Amino acid sequence: MNFDQTEAIQILERTPQTLEVLLTGLSEGWLECSEGEGTWNAREVVEHLIEGEKTNWIPRLAFILAEGESKPFPSFDRYAHLKQKSAEELGPVLLEFKTIRAQNITRLRELVEGKDQLELTGSHPAFGTVKVRELLSAWVVHDLTHIAQIVRVMAKRYGADVGPWREYLGILHRS
Amino acid sequence: MNFDQTEAIQILERTPQTLEVLLTGLSEGWLECSEGEGTWNAREVVEHLIEGEKTNWIPRLAFILAEGESKPFPSFDRYAHLKQKSAEELGPVLLEFKTIRAQNITRLRELVEGKDQLELTGSHPAFGTVKVRELLSAWVVHDLTHIAQIVRVMAKRYGADVGPWREYLGILHRS
Repeated sequence: MNFDQTEAIQILERTPQTLEVLLTGLSEGWLECSEGEGTWNAREVVEHLIEGEKTNWIPRLAFILAEGESKPFPSFDRYAHLKQKSAEELGPVLLEFKTIRAQNITRLRELVEGKDQLELTGSHPAFGTVKVRELLSAWVVHDLTHIAQIVRVMAKRYGADVGPWREYLGILHRS
Repeated sequence: MNFDQTEAIQILERTPQTLEVLLTGLSEGWLECSEGEGTWNAREVVEHLIEGEKTNWIPRLAFILAEGESKPFPSFDRYAHLKQKSAEELGPVLLEFKTIRAQNITRLRELVEGKDQLELTGSHPAFGTVKVRELLSAWVVHDLTHIAQIVRVMAKRYGADVGPWREYLGILHRS
């Protein structure tokens, strides 16, 4: 196992700034593109990350610490952000993500103060028994998944433009 | 076709800064990890990007503009950076990438001043006839590919730690 809370926070605290540097000031062409109907553009991905901050990672952590395995934690709607009207501008969405992420890192540090707590268990509605360590690791990997998704969506915009280089560029063949 | 030089440069100029924000200050655990023997850690990926700046994208562009299809351009050794002693520190590597990328963007703007030039053709040693537009699009997608690679390598470090969440995190199943 590689999880370490200090190292995990290194990733969690970099994600908003990484997306800010990558996305701020890009033309609409980059920001609006997706992988086709029913898939997300960059802003929708950031809105999904915000939704996770509000209803998934820290709320579930708090639930496990309070309830243990006595009852399963509420399921997380991965499409909740699509039910709201999407924001017009990316800037405020990135700022909201940065703000709520910073608050949640502070909360994480308050809630988990020692390694013993990483082995505490809760009940996931689909998976059954899960550990705090697994939840926190998944939070980190979820960030990295969605950075990769944004980058992949943008790469595919030039999927035809690259001509024969397509063969060498594996990112164009992924979904 | 979606290629537009101004938009392409938006990505090319963001890549060094994106990697700087993502990687600077991370613990060795994140910087040293790879996907196993013969695969690259984050620093090796940045060294590969530097090699591309030196011997691939702009040199090939200049070659096409000078030679057309009269002779194939030299092949690019994708493993050249592994033959040199790898740097000890990531900071100077990121700085070198940022510097040479900025120079190459300036050079790109000097070499390609109008859309007509995008349709000029050269001879790729493996692909045969290729267009300037295809070369420049591949440069952009190549950046995005390697950002995705770095993020994937880091995600896999927690591949076991996430426990049952593994099923939901597609990035852990890619190579």
